[in-house]
Amino acid sequence: MIAKKMQEMVKNSSAIRAMFEEGTKMASMYGEDKVYDFSLGNPNVCAPPSVKQALLELVTTEDPKILHGYSNSNSGDPYVRDTVANSLNRRFGTTFRGKNIIMTVGAAGGLNVILKTIVDPHDEVIVFCPYFGEYRSYISNFEGVLVEVNADTKTFQPNISEFEKKITAKTKAVIINTPNNPTGVVYGEPVIVKITEILKQKQAEFGTEIYLISDEPYREIVYDGLEVPYLTKFYENTVVAYSYSKSLSLPGERIGYLVVPDEVSQSELVLAAANVANRILGFVNAPSLLQKVVARCIDEKTDLAYYDRNRHTLYEGLTGCGFECVKPEGAFYLFMKSPVPDEKAFCEHAKKYHILMVPGSSFSCPGYVRIAYCVSYETIVRSLPEFKKLAEEYF
Amino acid sequence: MIAKKMQEMVKNSSAIRAMFEEGTKMASMYGEDKVYDFSLGNPNVCAPPSVKQALLELVTTEDPKILHGYSNSNSGDPYVRDTVANSLNRRFGTTFRGKNIIMTVGAAGGLNVILKTIVDPHDEVIVFCPYFGEYRSYISNFEGVLVEVNADTKTFQPNISEFEKKITAKTKAVIINTPNNPTGVVYGEPVIVKITEILKQKQAEFGTEIYLISDEPYREIVYDGLEVPYLTKFYENTVVAYSYSKSLSLPGERIGYLVVPDEVSQSELVLAAANVANRILGFVNAPSLLQKVVARCIDEKTDLAYYDRNRHTLYEGLTGCGFECVKPEGAFYLFMKSPVPDEKAFCEHAKKYHILMVPGSSFSCPGYVRIAYCVSYETIVRSLPEFKKLAEEYF
Repeated sequence: MIAKKMQEMVKNSSAIRAMFEEGTKMASMYGEDKVYDFSLGNPNVCAPPSVKQALLELVTTEDPKILHGYSNSNSGDPYVRDTVANSLNRRFGTTFRGKNIIMTVGAAGGLNVILKTIVDPHDEVIVFCPYFGEYRSYISNFEGVLVEVNADTKTFQPNISEFEKKITAKTKAVIINTPNNPTGVVYGEPVIVKITEILKQKQAEFGTEIYLISDEPYREIVYDGLEVPYLTKFYENTVVAYSYSKSLSLPGERIGYLVVPDEVSQSELVLAAANVANRILGFVNAPSLLQKVVARCIDEKTDLAYYDRNRHTLYEGLTGCGFECVKPEGAFYLFMKSPVPDEKAFCEHAKKYHILMVPGSSFSCPGYVRIAYCVSYETIVRSLPEFKKLAEEYF
Repeated sequence: MIAKKMQEMVKNSSAIRAMFEEGTKMASMYGEDKVYDFSLGNPNVCAPPSVKQALLELVTTEDPKILHGYSNSNSGDPYVRDTVANSLNRRFGTTFRGKNIIMTVGAAGGLNVILKTIVDPHDEVIVFCPYFGEYRSYISNFEGVLVEVNADTKTFQPNISEFEKKITAKTKAVIINTPNNPTGVVYGEPVIVKITEILKQKQAEFGTEIYLISDEPYREIVYDGLEVPYLTKFYENTVVAYSYSKSLSLPGERIGYLVVPDEVSQSELVLAAANVANRILGFVNAPSLLQKVVARCIDEKTDLAYYDRNRHTLYEGLTGCGFECVKPEGAFYLFMKSPVPDEKAFCEHAKKYHILMVPGSSFSCPGYVRIAYCVSYETIVRSLPEFKKLAEEYF
């Protein structure tokens, strides 16, 4: 009765829901403090106080007709778009104007908008394993063909030689996600230069435009003073999808933006089409009150030190009891090698110790598990003895 | 470079944008009080004071991690869903539970979610002319085929005999919109009974399920104490798409819901699929703060008297100078007969008097124009002498 395409998706999603429900059930059975749920990327750090301040001020002082009204255009409030552009220019030396910014319903909304804008049926979209599993659905929404580049499981940096081979005349876009979900690695400038040089060559070779889509909800969450290169400076056909879900801890509010620089081929047309896509996909415009809130909190940052303490404590704890993983440099995920090849069995077994993790297969990288450490510090501290018991069963 | 499907859409949307920009330009040239922009459905009535109160209370008292966090499920906050279900049950004698409600990014989001859930490529979706033009894009998003039932321009009630003929074995859904945009008419119970009887017969005849999708952002905006029948009581396979855009004057906040009653065939599967669709289309969940706001304002209503005064003043004024139109019973639109067959030329000509209206062709009903009277009362009063001058050129 439901659409054929949805039938398979419902089956897959039941697995995720089952895990979520298991977490809730375990918490009610054993107590919340005895369940170590590392399955969700829901930030445990509060939104900065300035968000509250901005909300109170806006609600108290602004005309509700304008505050809660449709945005002047489907791409968002002009002042908000200018504010975002100026902030990016200050921080990254770019030269965006408001017109290059499209406010979106989070990065998920933004990715769907840009894919709707550029992807024809059968166009290929390249992703690097491991990757956020939702990309499969987003690409499928527009009848695109997902092309995977296998993981380099030593470093979890992009496998450049395989990437080069996977680009064809049908490649319409490449999605990269750095800092990365689920590995926490950051792609440094040399890697970005390699990727973009290859893209330039391939565009020339095939006479096509290949869009580099940078999905960067974790841009502000990096440790040890690492720099995350701003991709529009390396490659003209770059589109950025950003979200305030993590940087301002507003995941439920669905607020983010797309950047389409003037350097993108036929930039005006892409912007006009993305404006239409934002409307006809049913978003209409990014939530209006929250657009104005993020503009007022444009220079705010989340409490990085909190995540960093989690990162160190968890990484030291896990490697100390024998587990292997690349040390995360950003985001709030740690991608740990499963001690047995069947990581789903490992995840099942870990539930004995009330530990919930996501199998790497969900990210097209079996043999690994994702641990989301955006939980409370206490959860991490309390989980470590349980991880130790778990390790002792394998090592 | 952009997707082929988007190229045509960008062209069409440029016309709408051009009109919007013309309105802005005219306002800056002649002064806002000398431009009569009836083109947009952006409410001129403020959100009720309880919305402000709810926002202030929530922001002041709730834990920001929960207030702004992801909803427990993609279908929304359980308390909010229960509140919506209970409110509907109180008002319409239904028996919904929270699980029948999916909070969505407005009705536009909800319509896309339910269409994604049920429409396979080449499935037919029936709409009654004149209709909200965005249905074309929503249906096209999922490769559905739009089937139009021509308007009965005497009453603007559904053309029942043509409707019956247009239903085929490929009909997957029928969208109805009452109170109607653009005509303002309300479908009474006898009409609903006829439509749903035909659907029951056709389901039996073809051995198919045909979903009746009720798009009802204007449900609360009815005049003269008229009743808008609640469609789930007439037909089992009914899905309701609702929005708070008009009823609480929150169009920019993108908050609404879908109702999928237990009586819908394979209701559990439809709900599960709609939950997935909400996620993978990029909505993820309806904006979290606003979900909680509408739950607190569940029994609030917009200032109907304001719109009603506009309705009377405009209707009397227009008919008084010779224009013809069906008197609107709901929503805040008036669908006026163009004095010449080419209503686009008429709209162009009306700009001489700084009057902006939308050609009926946008709603697949040429020869008519839509006047959105959700403007200020003063705009209506000031526009009438200009309408009179306009009329004198034709009658």
